[in-house]
Amino acid sequence: MDGDPILEAYRLWIENGWSDSADGLATVTSLIRVRQVLSIRADQALAPIDLTFSRYELLVHLYFNDGRLSLAQLGKRLQIHQTSVTSLVDKMEAQGLLRRTPHPTDRRSTIAQITPEGHALTAEAITRLNAELFRDLGLSGEEVRTLLTLLTKMRRSWGDFDGSWGDFDKESVRKPQGAGVE
Amino acid sequence: MDGDPILEAYRLWIENGWSDSADGLATVTSLIRVRQVLSIRADQALAPIDLTFSRYELLVHLYFNDGRLSLAQLGKRLQIHQTSVTSLVDKMEAQGLLRRTPHPTDRRSTIAQITPEGHALTAEAITRLNAELFRDLGLSGEEVRTLLTLLTKMRRSWGDFDGSWGDFDKESVRKPQGAGVE
Repeated sequence: MDGDPILEAYRLWIENGWSDSADGLATVTSLIRVRQVLSIRADQALAPIDLTFSRYELLVHLYFNDGRLSLAQLGKRLQIHQTSVTSLVDKMEAQGLLRRTPHPTDRRSTIAQITPEGHALTAEAITRLNAELFRDLGLSGEEVRTLLTLLTKMRRSWGDFDGSWGDFDKESVRKPQGAGVE
Repeated sequence: MDGDPILEAYRLWIENGWSDSADGLATVTSLIRVRQVLSIRADQALAPIDLTFSRYELLVHLYFNDGRLSLAQLGKRLQIHQTSVTSLVDKMEAQGLLRRTPHPTDRRSTIAQITPEGHALTAEAITRLNAELFRDLGLSGEEVRTLLTLLTKMRRSWGDFDGSWGDFDKESVRKPQGAGVE
């Protein structure tokens, strides 16, 4: 197959008389592909410090929550299944990035506690991702803003983002947000 | 945690002095989240016909290639690892959606051949995804076009899309594309 699989799918949709769905098809398929390449690029940025993006994503939640969260909280924040959290935590504990501790009051719950090594590695990972990924998405600053606005609008239409939480705005985001702004 | 995890990360980036990476962080994280919700919505659209989005993605490649591709070709087109192809094909063969046949000339290669049942189910899946997902992304038609253009620009910057392959344009996509248009 020569050319782009997404463009080829777009062509097939038009040829089959599904023109009114062709832009949506190409956009959904492009979103899937872009997410895939972003993961690869993030993994590449983190490979020199022996970290993967999925391990980083777990670490960064601990990092910004005084180093500790329950496994249930991690599942909720990472929006992944509890069995995936357990398997990830197993590997990261073996790597010395965190350790399990019992919950002080809830016997059924387990806490993941970041280690000093995990904390230092997260700081290093943030520096690398900022420089190698977040600051250069192949778009102008204005285009990145447009993309963020469109993605947020999609999330709002699905009930996945509530406008009363605030906006992606560098000035207002620092102020406390009132409920029901809109 | 109240509010949006992505907005919260954005706020943390600004508070920590990483403002120049905050839009990129929020955009990458939103892309990850949007892709996740899209999968959930696609699975929901396909659940009534006992299909998942990942099985659909494999079927649709067979559907538009005279019903047959080698497992190696499937891996390349789906951009997933060969072991994932094998495991997916196992499940779909058990479900009666495809069957394995030997390659006519290459003994080391195996062909996945869509069954009549798989073919009918794919047609039904396309109808459902067009109606329930691709035609309504929570954006206007113009916004979908802008989103597609930005995603394609990101892919081009990574070398994942070549402008000489053509454009996402309903008129020109039907014509044969010359090489090196740009």
